[in-house]
Amino acid sequence: MTITDSTATSAADAWTADRIRAADRAYVIHSWSTQGTVNAVPIAGGEGSWFWDYEGNRYLDFQSQLVNMNLGHQHPRIVEAIKEQADRMCYIGPGYAERSRAELAELMAQLTPGDLRMTFFTTGGAAANENAVRLARHVTGRRKIITRYRSYHGATAGAIALTGDPRRWYAEPNDFGVVRMFDPYTYRCPVGHPDPCPVCSGGPHLEEILQYENPETVAAVVLETVTGTNGLIYPPEGYLKSIREVCDKYGILLILDEVMAGFGRTGEWFACNHWDVTPDILITAKGLNSGYVPLGAMTVNERISEWLMTNKFWGGLTYAGHPLACASGVASIKAMQEENVLDNARAMGRRLDAGLRRLAEKHPSIGDIRGRGLFYGLELVKNRDTREPLVPFNPAGPAAAPMNAVIAAAKKQGLYLSANNNVIRLTPPLVIKPEEIDFALEALDNALVHADEATEPG
Amino acid sequence: MTITDSTATSAADAWTADRIRAADRAYVIHSWSTQGTVNAVPIAGGEGSWFWDYEGNRYLDFQSQLVNMNLGHQHPRIVEAIKEQADRMCYIGPGYAERSRAELAELMAQLTPGDLRMTFFTTGGAAANENAVRLARHVTGRRKIITRYRSYHGATAGAIALTGDPRRWYAEPNDFGVVRMFDPYTYRCPVGHPDPCPVCSGGPHLEEILQYENPETVAAVVLETVTGTNGLIYPPEGYLKSIREVCDKYGILLILDEVMAGFGRTGEWFACNHWDVTPDILITAKGLNSGYVPLGAMTVNERISEWLMTNKFWGGLTYAGHPLACASGVASIKAMQEENVLDNARAMGRRLDAGLRRLAEKHPSIGDIRGRGLFYGLELVKNRDTREPLVPFNPAGPAAAPMNAVIAAAKKQGLYLSANNNVIRLTPPLVIKPEEIDFALEALDNALVHADEATEPG
Ligand SMILES: Cc1ncc(COP(=O)(O)O)c(C=O)c1O
Ligand SMILES: Cc1ncc(COP(=O)(O)O)c(C=O)c1O
Repeated sequence: MTITDSTATSAADAWTADRIRAADRAYVIHSWSTQGTVNAVPIAGGEGSWFWDYEGNRYLDFQSQLVNMNLGHQHPRIVEAIKEQADRMCYIGPGYAERSRAELAELMAQLTPGDLRMTFFTTGGAAANENAVRLARHVTGRRKIITRYRSYHGATAGAIALTGDPRRWYAEPNDFGVVRMFDPYTYRCPVGHPDPCPVCSGGPHLEEILQYENPETVAAVVLETVTGTNGLIYPPEGYLKSIREVCDKYGILLILDEVMAGFGRTGEWFACNHWDVTPDILITAKGLNSGYVPLGAMTVNERISEWLMTNKFWGGLTYAGHPLACASGVASIKAMQEENVLDNARAMGRRLDAGLRRLAEKHPSIGDIRGRGLFYGLELVKNRDTREPLVPFNPAGPAAAPMNAVIAAAKKQGLYLSANNNVIRLTPPLVIKPEEIDFALEALDNALVHADEATEPG
Repeated sequence: MTITDSTATSAADAWTADRIRAADRAYVIHSWSTQGTVNAVPIAGGEGSWFWDYEGNRYLDFQSQLVNMNLGHQHPRIVEAIKEQADRMCYIGPGYAERSRAELAELMAQLTPGDLRMTFFTTGGAAANENAVRLARHVTGRRKIITRYRSYHGATAGAIALTGDPRRWYAEPNDFGVVRMFDPYTYRCPVGHPDPCPVCSGGPHLEEILQYENPETVAAVVLETVTGTNGLIYPPEGYLKSIREVCDKYGILLILDEVMAGFGRTGEWFACNHWDVTPDILITAKGLNSGYVPLGAMTVNERISEWLMTNKFWGGLTYAGHPLACASGVASIKAMQEENVLDNARAMGRRLDAGLRRLAEKHPSIGDIRGRGLFYGLELVKNRDTREPLVPFNPAGPAAAPMNAVIAAAKKQGLYLSANNNVIRLTPPLVIKPEEIDFALEALDNALVHADEATEPG
């Protein structure tokens, strides 16, 4: 089946798949890529948990694209809200009050935990993190920021400096004042996981770093509540509370980056709800409006809101509080509330979890299954006993082959997946249906054979 | 007239002006402001060059909001394109090819001067500048960046480091490797404007700085082709060519930031067209799609496009090449082409220019009138002979009073203006009509009396 584009005015200028592909190759610079190796497939449409190309190939989107489409493709309520706001007012400057902007900010205050109150809206996650760090520095009068190695916080100069993953290497050196902690990666604990483990219990590791760094110079600790891109790493019970306590002890602000983990992804509105911890600043984007219009948010607690009453906020961007983006956010939140999306995420998460555990019985390559809601990581290993990863850290070229084989085999069956190092991310839209979960499990079952082939006899 | 919101479902939850105002105050963090002093007016709608509040006050938007609404408010073709794309596909990840993204990238290659070819799309100006600088460093293998004092390039860590205006003070110190040049501010030349002036002719000033800095360590020169926010400073004839030549001599890349000056603002598609200079990297946003959806762009020349074929581009963001944003960009460019918007900008610019020169005969506070197209600055002075500015640089509190009085008097008459230091920006939508220009001139005539009062007898 070839889908031609009905909106083209004549055959000559029709945007066929071939023309899109050619223009894309010639003119579009793609993220994190050597452009000569990019062969981007033109996508014709999407609906719910599926999207398709112009040749009629359909893919079950087990990535929610970049883990942003929490409500899936073309959710009718968000589409409608965008169209309504487009008719009413596409844009007004950030200095004015605007209905959707005010409504979304009010919703954020209601939805976010504890005493989080005022929100600054950006156009994505990176800028929201940048603003949080600058604000934290002004509020505390301190400069250093503590982040973790296995983390991604965005790609502008400040956000990439906060980031721990190798993409930061290409923006270094910098003098952004970042100090890095290890991650509570219980499956591969950096200190060998003695019991109780100082790194994985949070506080002791942070305390030791502060002892060397001088806590009075540290403005904030910035963490992904659950590490997303870099391997779906869930902190153990008690970790987040312990970090919160150490921050409070030294007057350090806790900034939680829930760009990926927020808005129902883990089965709660925010991942920090699982551990009953409220950050001083909460960062969101992606699931906030499923990315239908670029949007990010920095929400600050009561104390910082009060500070801002009498101190200047030194941040801004032309598209702060963009009305069209805010309207899509309001519609998205209401759809999540009224369509019981969180319940579905939890139920489908349980179905996925059970299925994955069945797969683990068959596939020796499955080393660890981690997740809540629909935020799952499947860690693949060469050997379950030694836990040697299926591919090394930051694999290049042939070293990445076994993971690529799994992803390609899934894709061939119509399952769209992606991976980081040796961890497959399973992050479908929260509106996914039981039969779609089952479809994914079956495709994964077939695909994992390629990983099993790379395992060593136990 | 009180406009109530027809989309509210019941009286109780109606988003009246009062409710919007209250929610805004309680929950929205506004850019560059002490939140306790913000009293944001709820805006009900806009059309063409006008917008209005809920009390029926109408304002002629002589700012195009943040100088982004080049096609004015609610241009029907952009609104329609957003709605069409919303129905077709709101979002697909940056790794795929998508029709609007491909089409906009192709249009950029066609419209931009010289051999500019491939485009990376961001969600605004700051991120586009950040990506340009990182890319320039990778292409050249050098780190230092030369920018100018009177400049604004955005507010993320890298962009604010490039920026010269005082907003950067609150993000300093940094170690971003920025070295600053003086501006070709002929009306207030930093070196007293001897003839020929080394600063205002460009090359000699840059050469001197390079001599001290070592040209082999400089990756790029980043300039607003015409300085926008910081005072509408036009380079004299020959300046840009001279900078281009020095860059070429040392293998330094020239990055022109036309976030504000591009897309017809100066009466040409791009400001650099006036001087027949092609940068290595052109940065745009704002007028690219009038800001109806957050969008920015970095367009690189043939040489960098080729470099990118075999070298990795180390940048990315979730909303790179956002389909809804790209669709609005395509519609905006086509509307500009088919509705002869540049012709109108030039004609209305001439009408404005003539009117301003008439005002200058009456108002001793007018020190300088600078502009092309609809990108005008009106520099106000205490004394035409000494050129002493009406208010000092970066005025705080009462020092800013005379400028504030002019802006307030204009607003009272329904003319929305803004200023930086002692320079009023006159930057209406490019679709403005003759009678609207005349309306603005009359309101300005009345408002300038307040500035005249602050002048000193000559
Ligand atoms: C946890 C986290 N923070 C920040 C970001 C950056 O967001 P953006 O790409 O919108 O700048 C991402 C993007 O993947 C993310 O996963
Ligand atoms: C010349 C210039 N560059 C960059 C920017 C930053 O753009 P944004 O606010 O979209 O990040 C601006 C914004 O005013 C600008 O005028």
